[in-house]
Amino acid sequence: MRCEVVAIGTELLLGQITDTNSSWIGEQLAQAGIDSHYQVKVGDNLERIVECIGRALSRNDAVICCGGLGPTQDDITREAIAEVMGVKLVRDDEIGERIRRMFESRGRTMPANNLRQAEVPAGASPIAQMPGTAPGLVCPVGDKVIYAVPGVPSEMREMVLGTILPDLQRRAGMTAVIKSRTLRTWGHSESGLAEMLAPRMDELDQGGKATLAFLASGIEGIKVRITAKGESEAATNAIIAEEEKIIRSILGHCVFGVDEETMETVVLDRLKENGWTLAVAETDATGGLISMRLCAKYRHAAGVFLGGVVVNDHESQQRILGVKPAPFPNPATTAELAEAVRRKFGAEVGLATTAVDDSVRAPGMRPGTVFIGLAFADDARAERIQLPGDRERIREFSVISGLNVLRHRLSGR
Amino acid sequence: MRCEVVAIGTELLLGQITDTNSSWIGEQLAQAGIDSHYQVKVGDNLERIVECIGRALSRNDAVICCGGLGPTQDDITREAIAEVMGVKLVRDDEIGERIRRMFESRGRTMPANNLRQAEVPAGASPIAQMPGTAPGLVCPVGDKVIYAVPGVPSEMREMVLGTILPDLQRRAGMTAVIKSRTLRTWGHSESGLAEMLAPRMDELDQGGKATLAFLASGIEGIKVRITAKGESEAATNAIIAEEEKIIRSILGHCVFGVDEETMETVVLDRLKENGWTLAVAETDATGGLISMRLCAKYRHAAGVFLGGVVVNDHESQQRILGVKPAPFPNPATTAELAEAVRRKFGAEVGLATTAVDDSVRAPGMRPGTVFIGLAFADDARAERIQLPGDRERIREFSVISGLNVLRHRLSGR
Repeated sequence: MRCEVVAIGTELLLGQITDTNSSWIGEQLAQAGIDSHYQVKVGDNLERIVECIGRALSRNDAVICCGGLGPTQDDITREAIAEVMGVKLVRDDEIGERIRRMFESRGRTMPANNLRQAEVPAGASPIAQMPGTAPGLVCPVGDKVIYAVPGVPSEMREMVLGTILPDLQRRAGMTAVIKSRTLRTWGHSESGLAEMLAPRMDELDQGGKATLAFLASGIEGIKVRITAKGESEAATNAIIAEEEKIIRSILGHCVFGVDEETMETVVLDRLKENGWTLAVAETDATGGLISMRLCAKYRHAAGVFLGGVVVNDHESQQRILGVKPAPFPNPATTAELAEAVRRKFGAEVGLATTAVDDSVRAPGMRPGTVFIGLAFADDARAERIQLPGDRERIREFSVISGLNVLRHRLSGR
Repeated sequence: MRCEVVAIGTELLLGQITDTNSSWIGEQLAQAGIDSHYQVKVGDNLERIVECIGRALSRNDAVICCGGLGPTQDDITREAIAEVMGVKLVRDDEIGERIRRMFESRGRTMPANNLRQAEVPAGASPIAQMPGTAPGLVCPVGDKVIYAVPGVPSEMREMVLGTILPDLQRRAGMTAVIKSRTLRTWGHSESGLAEMLAPRMDELDQGGKATLAFLASGIEGIKVRITAKGESEAATNAIIAEEEKIIRSILGHCVFGVDEETMETVVLDRLKENGWTLAVAETDATGGLISMRLCAKYRHAAGVFLGGVVVNDHESQQRILGVKPAPFPNPATTAELAEAVRRKFGAEVGLATTAVDDSVRAPGMRPGTVFIGLAFADDARAERIQLPGDRERIREFSVISGLNVLRHRLSGR
C-alpha cells in the first residue's frame, strides 16, 4: 500500500507557511506501515493541482490532499479532485447541514459562501470527523482513493487519525499490528539519551522486534518512541511492554510519563495522591505559562492547582507578594516568592521560578540561568539550573524543569 | 524564469525532519521575482530522484536540489544529476582539495569516503561558498540549470544567497520585485472577511497589480496578505501601499496590526502612549495565557504591564481578589475581577476574562460564551461575546478578543 501527500496552497510555495502537515502525515503513514515515496507542494492553480493529484494517483494506491477546502475563492481542491475523478461537483445536503449546524453551535449564521464547502465531487463521502467548518472527503477512484483534508493542523490530524489511517490499513488488508509507545523524559539532553541507549539500539539493530526513535519536543520533554510490529494487538503490546521495561531500567527517573501524559498531569496527580494543593509565583521570564499549562489540564488541576501570581516588575513583587526585590534573580528571593504565594493561596506547596534571559543583564549569570523555588509548610528553598537556548526556549524549559524539580521532591528524591 | 525545489532525503518523507529548507528557498525565490509552481520531496532512491529532477527540469528553467550531497552511501544526489544530464561523474581535484583543506582547517584529517564529494557530474562547477564539507554544484543543462546544495540549512542558505539567487536573476535578466504585506484583523470570521473583500478580489482578478490571500492564525488573528510584483522595490512598495489603503477602507477597525505586530504589542504601545499601566485577572479558562503573551513582548510590556493573577477556583478568587464567587461566569463578577486586580496592582487599567468552556456547565450558556471585563478609575463593566471552537481555541480566542476589546476602548470606540 503506497500513499502520496499533496499539500495545496500558494502560501506554502511562497514560504509564508512551512508545510508541517506533510511531515506529520508522513510520520503517521510510516508508523502505520504504509509506504510513501513522494510528497508534493503545489499552489492554488486548478490545472497544476489536477496534474499533481493525477500523477500521485497514477503512482500510488492512495492520495491525501491537504488544504484548499475552505470557503474562499482560492480554495479549489474540491474542483481539482472532481476533474481527476472525471465527475461533476454536486451539492451534498448532509454536508451543508453539518456546516450550518457548526455555525449555529457558535451562535453565528453561516455566510452564504460557506455552502461552497458542501459542493463535493459526485461519489465522494464526508469524513466523519469535522472539528471545523471544512468537511474532509473520501473520494473513491476505482480501487484507489483520494482523501481531502483541511490545512488547519488540528482538523487535519483528527481526520487522518480517525478515518484515513484505519481506512488505508483496511484497504491494505493489513494483519500485522504496528503500535508505538512514547516514554517522556526530562533531565538529559537528546545526545545524552542517545549515548545511554546506544548499546540497546545496537542490540535491536541486530534483529530486535522493536525500534527506538528520539524526539526533542520542547516543553513536552524529550520523547523516546518505541515502535513494534506484531501478529496481533496482544503480541505487539507484549513486545512494547517488554521493551519499555528495558528502556526504563536504562533511563531511570528521567522518565516522567508515557504517551499523552505531560509533566503537568503527572505532577498534579502526584499532588492529588498526597491531598496537597499548589500555588505558583512567576516573573516575566515564564510570565504565566506555568499557571496556563496547569490550568489547561483542568481535570487534573481541579482541587489541586489553586492559582498563581505573575509579577512583571519589582514594585509589583513587593506590593502583591510582599517579597523584597533583589537586583537580580537569586535563590533566596526565589524561595521567598514560593513561600509567599503558598501562604497567599493557603496551599500546601508553593512553586516559583525566576530566570536570567536576554531581557536581564545579571553579572556572572548567563542567559538560561534559572532558579526554581519550592516551599512546603516546613521548608522553602531554591535550586539553580542552567538551560540552553533563546528567550522562548528558556521559558518553556523553565516550566518543565520547575515542575520536574517538584516531581522529584514529591517522590522524596 | 521558473525554478522548482527538489528536497532529497528519506528522513523528510518519514517526518523525522520537517523540510523547512524548501519553504525558505521558496520565500527567497518569491522575493527575487522568480516563479515557483511546485516543490517536491523524494527519498534516497536513485530512480525516483532522477525522475523528480528530470520532470522538474522539463517544466522549469532551473531546479534546486537540496540534500543528499554528503559522503555516505545514501547520498546519491550527484549520481542522480549526472544521470539527468546524461554525463559521467568525474573527480574534480579542485573540489577534492577544498574538502581536504576544510578538514585541515578544523585540525582533522579527511576520511577517505569524503572524496566521494569530489565526484561531480562532468560539466558541473562548484559553488564558491562552502561553509561545510559538502560542496554545492552548478550544473548547466543546455540553457537550463540544476543547482545542488546541502541539506544543512546554514550551508544551504549561504549558497542560495551567495550564488544561486544572483545567478538566477542574471539568467532571467529581470529585476521584478515581489513583496508582501500582511494586515492582521480580529472581529470577523475568515469567510466574513472573504465576503467583504470579494468585490475587490474580483477587480484584482481582472488585471490588478496585487493579489490577496487569507490566513486564519489563531491567537495571531486572521491575516489578509497583500502581494505585489513591481519593476523595482519602490514600485512594488507603492502598489502595496495603495492596495493597503483600499483594503483598510473596506475592513475598517478590525485591522489591528501589520506584519509582525501582534495584538499584545499594539495594546501595550497604545497604553504606553496614554501613560497607563495594566493588570490582568484570569480564571482557568485562559489560565495565565494573557499574562504570558503580554510578558513575552517584554520591550513593549516594561513599565506598562504590571502583572496578573490567576484564580482557578471560587475560594481563591475570594481569597486573592476579594471578589464574591458566583455560581457561573457573568458580566458583574467579571467587571468586579477587573476592578479588583486593577486596585491590587495599582494600575490604571484592569482586564479580566471569564469563560464557559466544556469544563463548565452553565445553564443557557454554550461553550465559548466569554465575558470580558474592563476597569478604569471611573468605570468598570464587562461585555459578552460568543467564540467558536474547543477549549484550546476558546482560550486563544479569549485572549485576543479580550485585548481587542481593550484596544477598541483605548481608541474611544
